[in-house]
Amino acid sequence: MRNINEDTITQAVIAAMSGCTDGRLTSIMTSLVQHLHSFAREVKLTEAEWEQAIRFLTEVGHITDDKRQEFILLSDTLGLSTLVTAQNNAKPPGCTEATVFGPFFVEGAPWFEYGQDIANGARGEPCFVRGQVRGIDGRPISAAVIDVWQSDDAGHYDVQYAGSGAEFEHRARGRFRSGADGHFRFRSILAQPYPIPHDGPVGRMLDALGRHPWRPAHLHFMIEAPGYEKLITHVFRDGDQYLDSDAVFGVRSTLIADWKRHDPGVAPDGHDLAVPYYTLEFDFVLNPSREKQ
Amino acid sequence: MRNINEDTITQAVIAAMSGCTDGRLTSIMTSLVQHLHSFAREVKLTEAEWEQAIRFLTEVGHITDDKRQEFILLSDTLGLSTLVTAQNNAKPPGCTEATVFGPFFVEGAPWFEYGQDIANGARGEPCFVRGQVRGIDGRPISAAVIDVWQSDDAGHYDVQYAGSGAEFEHRARGRFRSGADGHFRFRSILAQPYPIPHDGPVGRMLDALGRHPWRPAHLHFMIEAPGYEKLITHVFRDGDQYLDSDAVFGVRSTLIADWKRHDPGVAPDGHDLAVPYYTLEFDFVLNPSREKQ
Repeated sequence: MRNINEDTITQAVIAAMSGCTDGRLTSIMTSLVQHLHSFAREVKLTEAEWEQAIRFLTEVGHITDDKRQEFILLSDTLGLSTLVTAQNNAKPPGCTEATVFGPFFVEGAPWFEYGQDIANGARGEPCFVRGQVRGIDGRPISAAVIDVWQSDDAGHYDVQYAGSGAEFEHRARGRFRSGADGHFRFRSILAQPYPIPHDGPVGRMLDALGRHPWRPAHLHFMIEAPGYEKLITHVFRDGDQYLDSDAVFGVRSTLIADWKRHDPGVAPDGHDLAVPYYTLEFDFVLNPSREKQ
Repeated sequence: MRNINEDTITQAVIAAMSGCTDGRLTSIMTSLVQHLHSFAREVKLTEAEWEQAIRFLTEVGHITDDKRQEFILLSDTLGLSTLVTAQNNAKPPGCTEATVFGPFFVEGAPWFEYGQDIANGARGEPCFVRGQVRGIDGRPISAAVIDVWQSDDAGHYDVQYAGSGAEFEHRARGRFRSGADGHFRFRSILAQPYPIPHDGPVGRMLDALGRHPWRPAHLHFMIEAPGYEKLITHVFRDGDQYLDSDAVFGVRSTLIADWKRHDPGVAPDGHDLAVPYYTLEFDFVLNPSREKQ
């Protein structure tokens, strides 16, 4: 293994992993090395460009912490997340479609009861959300664990505000369980379109590519129930100007809903509101797990 | 741009950069997205594997600092560095071949005069190096700037020792200029084979792939002179057990030299040494720049 040149390097790297005992890892790394090398050959990557790529990845790593995940942003903006989501979530017609996970999920969000307000001080117009979780067979799914997370009226998630240490507070984010009839209901705030964080290397990449960083307004949902595939998805707001140019390629027509505006008055939770408010109804249909329970 | 699936995502990402005004960047990113997506499709990357990849890259980013460059290690061990070096350094026969840069170069190494000892306390058997820098036409190149860096007898570079802050000291690393006749000469220590840093994510990757992390003993050289292409290369030590399994695929036959061992006695610098020492002679032949000077 001497005098390796641009034509022989790929086979040399593959041969070096001939002792790997994990067949799946061997397949993945063989394909990765082949495509990585094909890319570098195809564009005849220069040494200066390679250095720039090393610097870029280093910056992506350094801005990433427990509250900001720039590698996920990179995967999202390059369409890799949508591709991986799509090829792993083929579902029968009638099931709710999946879309990208995004970088803003936080483990361990607070639990709420049916009908409670998850905003916890996040600013925005009131929004009342209700719906049902069902199986593809139409049967209600009770006690499904529903995670919701969203941005506020400034387009920021709670994790994007200063104070991500001990003083961090979950806002417009929560978990609850569907009721005996599969229904859920909560109060939150109206989601707004927002730019993905673009003050870092991924933002500079989008700028350089002539791309905008905006996402159409949406609510994130993650729904888990025994015997069903985990569903990670969004509900998008109809009429949003970015529905056809989502920076992370996540919009699906079946996930767009009408978020109805109401004049001030008695809201669905019985409170008399002095401000306009919104209501959203959306049902989720889960696919049974392929694994035997 | 709605309802993008695994077949349409690639074209959607490419279409999103249609406003990019940098033709080279457009070419590079188009090819990158195509190959990244082809890889994910070919292995049908799962969501769990995608998460593992995000975690791996995050760890590579977090262990990287101003003295450790894990992304370069990753590029080196995946053969990308050798590929990029090879395709950018085609030289006429007779020129010294280039090889990988590696992660251990440090800007601003101390300057030395002809014949001085660059070890500065780095441990190892004495080694006296001499040679000449010439053009392909045979003419000596004077005042070429020569950067040298190497590991000590424990297989570590200076930057791998604790104390990389203000108290950091350059050891077995230095810069000097070739003399009027192109000659250079310095004292250092004997380079030893060593494992690339393998206590991080790249080390775990090599383990999982059944690969060892060792590199054959070598001296790094970077030589710059006006009117000539910059040369980044190594000189390898003949007989090393890792010459045919270099973890970073960098060995070239023309860069292997005989590092002669001598019994204790009067060394080339006139000192009477009570320990054995080594001598190495190696000439470097530079290629004229393609750019007009």
